[in-house]
Amino acid sequence: MKKLINNPADIVDELIDGFVLANKDKVRRIGSNTVVARIDAPIKDKVGIVIGGGAGHEPLFLEYVGKGMADVEAHGQIFAAPSSAIGLEAIKAADGGKGVILLYCNYAGDVMNFNLAQEMARDEGIKVETVLVHDDISSAPRENKEDRRGTTSTPVIIKIAGAASETKMEFEPLKSLIEKAVANSRSLGVSLSACTLPETGLATFTLEEGKMEFGMGLHGEAGIKKVDLMTADETAVTILDLLIEDLPYRSGDEVIALVNGYGSTTRMEMFIIMRKIHKYLAKKGISIYASELGEFCTSQEMAGISISLIKLDDELKKYYDMTADSPGYKKV
Amino acid sequence: MKKLINNPADIVDELIDGFVLANKDKVRRIGSNTVVARIDAPIKDKVGIVIGGGAGHEPLFLEYVGKGMADVEAHGQIFAAPSSAIGLEAIKAADGGKGVILLYCNYAGDVMNFNLAQEMARDEGIKVETVLVHDDISSAPRENKEDRRGTTSTPVIIKIAGAASETKMEFEPLKSLIEKAVANSRSLGVSLSACTLPETGLATFTLEEGKMEFGMGLHGEAGIKKVDLMTADETAVTILDLLIEDLPYRSGDEVIALVNGYGSTTRMEMFIIMRKIHKYLAKKGISIYASELGEFCTSQEMAGISISLIKLDDELKKYYDMTADSPGYKKV
Repeated sequence: MKKLINNPADIVDELIDGFVLANKDKVRRIGSNTVVARIDAPIKDKVGIVIGGGAGHEPLFLEYVGKGMADVEAHGQIFAAPSSAIGLEAIKAADGGKGVILLYCNYAGDVMNFNLAQEMARDEGIKVETVLVHDDISSAPRENKEDRRGTTSTPVIIKIAGAASETKMEFEPLKSLIEKAVANSRSLGVSLSACTLPETGLATFTLEEGKMEFGMGLHGEAGIKKVDLMTADETAVTILDLLIEDLPYRSGDEVIALVNGYGSTTRMEMFIIMRKIHKYLAKKGISIYASELGEFCTSQEMAGISISLIKLDDELKKYYDMTADSPGYKKV
Repeated sequence: MKKLINNPADIVDELIDGFVLANKDKVRRIGSNTVVARIDAPIKDKVGIVIGGGAGHEPLFLEYVGKGMADVEAHGQIFAAPSSAIGLEAIKAADGGKGVILLYCNYAGDVMNFNLAQEMARDEGIKVETVLVHDDISSAPRENKEDRRGTTSTPVIIKIAGAASETKMEFEPLKSLIEKAVANSRSLGVSLSACTLPETGLATFTLEEGKMEFGMGLHGEAGIKKVDLMTADETAVTILDLLIEDLPYRSGDEVIALVNGYGSTTRMEMFIIMRKIHKYLAKKGISIYASELGEFCTSQEMAGISISLIKLDDELKKYYDMTADSPGYKKV
């Protein structure tokens, strides 16, 4: 796979540079680090929301920094967690005196580095707590759900966390709110082709033409079921049945239905999947409060989609509905 | 290339269905036609803006219907213009008594069908005029610029047209404003891989690994120069030099710089291109008022990017800065 890059070693530095240049009214870079903060961070008396993770999944996490979204992001290298030093820099840039909540996806490298950063920040007297997203039902059984990877409900959880923190919600209720959003979220994806590492141009795995694999990770982690290519409708129903059973989502529930494209999947395909989600959930008595569709969390040019369901209550709806203005997610 | 679809004959119907279900607070479908209107159209005493073209380029044009954007869209089949009957339906749905401006891209099929629709609407007493986008500098020499194809500055032109019509601007000045936006816009793209027609799964052209082609059309139309893969920086400079010379853009000008991804190109790559645009235009004394980056106009899963420059004056800036709330383009 050919990519439009310069020196492979400069990819992350240059992408952040380009991102900040394109959005200089909204974000700024902290020094020469791969840390991006909203232009007005830290905000006095607001709990800071710090997000982050490996690069290569853009718009995640970078582009979700902004008003009503996260305060600061720590960007790693391609498919590699940000270091603890970068994590610490991000925490400091976000702290407006009321402490910081780290909100990121459950991957070993991220957890190790952000935990270290959290300890260092606490040593400097900053209140820091962590909420991990672990919504990917393919990556561990339900009884070990805390071990699951975090995936594509993350942008919606960031949106809710950011809106609530913007209202100057206190630390403990804010943390509980974010934990509730995580607990209510489930995701599952299907891949139709591999992604390539931009530094090497090599595919991370192979998937034969005519096959698709459910539950693959965002870095090519093995999935749960490889099958012959299904129709869009069959694909949607296969994923929805597994998601619905897992939480479980019940008749009468209200959800956000999110369709994420991993990279080269067209919006045309995503809308066809979305159509089936609406029809199938209606049959199950599950009502769709809002739909989200797009590339929220990519895996380079991997083909495929994931579906996330986020169950709402009145409190979550209230914060979901508020205005947001980040480069990667806007709500008017 | 594998695609997540159902019956290939149903692609456009199902994608519109999914689009409307996902955005039912903002848009509605007119009958069973492939026509989508903002929920409150037609709006009394507002000049209606009708956009449209072939499917397969989503988010164009479909997703640019909404507040501060277009009133109604006529969607064709994959890479095929909407029929005149669909065009007429769209015009009628947009007319709030002050007439309708058709704003679309210069392709023979679109022009033929929309012209017919315009004639039929005039016969029914509706005031209708047309503004064609013809920004693609690769498709005809400068002295025949009216013959050029319309491409990726279109979303920005729709945004400006929509904002101005929302202020209830009169018909003639509105048409002149849109014509000015078109006259100030230039685009050029580069392709790194082919796109496949979703109905057949066949590629529309071939491009050898390690090659890239400047100036290819959105439907695989032949380009102007096939070369060995360049770096991102070299690619950006090659395109910018041609764009700058063509208008020409001059030191002291203010522009919107837009980077469009055609399908499978990552945002990582687009940000690296954007970085170079900022650095190169700064050297030329051309100032970037705003940056736009994303998939605005795709060609299925084609790899590649285009760059558009839209020169601004105070009037264009004023309408560009206003709020917009369509599914595919939002400004808070």
